Amino acid sequence: MEDTENNIRIPFTIMKSEFSRILLNHGFSAENADKCAEIFAVNSLEGVNSHGVNRFHRFVRNIVEGLIKPNEVPRLIHKSGSLEQWEGNLAPGPLNATFASDRATQLARENGIGLVALAHTNHWMRGGTYGWQAARKGFVFIGWTNTCPNMPAWGAKDARLGNNPFVFAVPYKNDAIVLDFAMSQFSYGKLETYYREGKKLPYTGGYNKHGDLTYEPSEILESWRPVPIGYWKGASLSLLLDILAAILSSGLATHEVKSCFSEYNVSQVYIAISLESLPNFPAIDNSIQQIIEDLKNSVPENEFATIRYPGENIAKIRAANLQDGIPVIKEVWNKVLSL
Amino acid sequence: MEDTENNIRIPFTIMKSEFSRILLNHGFSAENADKCAEIFAVNSLEGVNSHGVNRFHRFVRNIVEGLIKPNEVPRLIHKSGSLEQWEGNLAPGPLNATFASDRATQLARENGIGLVALAHTNHWMRGGTYGWQAARKGFVFIGWTNTCPNMPAWGAKDARLGNNPFVFAVPYKNDAIVLDFAMSQFSYGKLETYYREGKKLPYTGGYNKHGDLTYEPSEILESWRPVPIGYWKGASLSLLLDILAAILSSGLATHEVKSCFSEYNVSQVYIAISLESLPNFPAIDNSIQQIIEDLKNSVPENEFATIRYPGENIAKIRAANLQDGIPVIKEVWNKVLSL
Repeated sequence: MEDTENNIRIPFTIMKSEFSRILLNHGFSAENADKCAEIFAVNSLEGVNSHGVNRFHRFVRNIVEGLIKPNEVPRLIHKSGSLEQWEGNLAPGPLNATFASDRATQLARENGIGLVALAHTNHWMRGGTYGWQAARKGFVFIGWTNTCPNMPAWGAKDARLGNNPFVFAVPYKNDAIVLDFAMSQFSYGKLETYYREGKKLPYTGGYNKHGDLTYEPSEILESWRPVPIGYWKGASLSLLLDILAAILSSGLATHEVKSCFSEYNVSQVYIAISLESLPNFPAIDNSIQQIIEDLKNSVPENEFATIRYPGENIAKIRAANLQDGIPVIKEVWNKVLSL
Repeated sequence: MEDTENNIRIPFTIMKSEFSRILLNHGFSAENADKCAEIFAVNSLEGVNSHGVNRFHRFVRNIVEGLIKPNEVPRLIHKSGSLEQWEGNLAPGPLNATFASDRATQLARENGIGLVALAHTNHWMRGGTYGWQAARKGFVFIGWTNTCPNMPAWGAKDARLGNNPFVFAVPYKNDAIVLDFAMSQFSYGKLETYYREGKKLPYTGGYNKHGDLTYEPSEILESWRPVPIGYWKGASLSLLLDILAAILSSGLATHEVKSCFSEYNVSQVYIAISLESLPNFPAIDNSIQQIIEDLKNSVPENEFATIRYPGENIAKIRAANLQDGIPVIKEVWNKVLSL
């Protein structure tokens, strides 16, 4: 985001305390307000305003509408060994997700691998959050959520699949390598960010309402026809992720989530894998480093290309925003202050 | 594949018995020759010649070269609960993969979910095989393999990532929904198939050696620059799959597999999830059917579009090829007969 007169910078601590204040006023306990405010503020701190400050007013609206229940907590429905099914009770998505990710790591600690399927939960905001949480504790994390119908099947015009964000994380050098991606070429959060910033997409990201491929985020936000990653491949992966989220959790599938205006009541899967019991554990960090070093030895396609691993930039963005404040659109921040 | 004078049709039983005869002559036990011949022949029967009959002579060459050891079997290296690490001993890839997929389902039966990581194994041919195997026994399957370096990192020219095929399978109506896809927009098997059949790709599948996007399979087979699915997303997913395969199995990473000419000694991950213990198990098939029905209600983008779930066509292809024989390029079949 560029510094212009429409953009301001808000210190992390101020942003978090404003979020916390508002959540306390909307029925959250002090502990939950703090946890949730932290997640929203860190998402913005790490450059993901679409699921941080930009999304906060919608989160609060959903609480007011009763779609998110501030005081609910997950409840264990079924356990078979290392596989657990939890009822999310429509509690706040980021709190449920933190719980489920943590529970999966406990199961993995006991048993090598653990899976928590979570029904009737809410939007987890930035899926990467839970990948970072688990990986920083030393676990591999694989997780996903289904969404409302926001992407057409391959060969179709109307959105019946979700773009079902998928997260893959692995511990690395006391931090993590984290991949967090939607099944559409651009997530709706990214489309909104490009739109807000008045920019075109770098690649065609979907079809406009006339059925032509387009670089204009606004046209895709209107048509609900983003292109799946890898065309038929991303559409198929999205279908499988939805099926698994629904059947493993016994929660809703995308076609039952229905509304994207007030998307709620989604289904999620959290898998954690323990590394520390493996005989090669002491060598793992070094193995990853060799893979990354080989990747970095790539021949760039041109002078502007940089070869990065997923999540590599986050530490730099975080440090810069901690120092200079988090860039926010003035109008968005004023909306938060008014809550 | 069209019926032309260069193509012939071989009955499934003949194809399988020829494969079996050749494997027996190359040091396989009767049981292993039968199992392996079955996998190669079924791959062709189900329309995947690239990892069936077309690949068979290369498989035999690798046995002769000593890269594949016909009489080796996997050995358990480490177990922590539901997570196991196995040494593949360079045994035949399809046999190791069948073993590992089966072992993962046993762990899942005991414990809800199971993961087998397999080091020092060989090419599993068509990954979907093991998804079908597990899903037909009632298990969800998630698995992948790393490969030799055959795809550039995002922003790079030289191939340092693998296209690391990924398999996702779920039981459905006494059969399965199976997604089996490479991280490149077209697998090398698909590129070779288009090339053999003298066809252009339906979408740009990579760059030619001048750095321009191309529809010509031969140009990508020459440049080793396929496009990753979803551009940077598929490249990142590929990296994570390689890291996980290598560290979980304690086997080789893509940069250590080195040669794509005689690709061998790869690392794989097999995850199985048990459905039958879940409280909603009796309703699962119906839940999936509702998801599929909703998908099928999509509005097609034009009169030629059909909306399918992954693997839907397989039963039809299998039935047709069982009846009419498996279409094979005459030259390829003659090469098999000469082995």
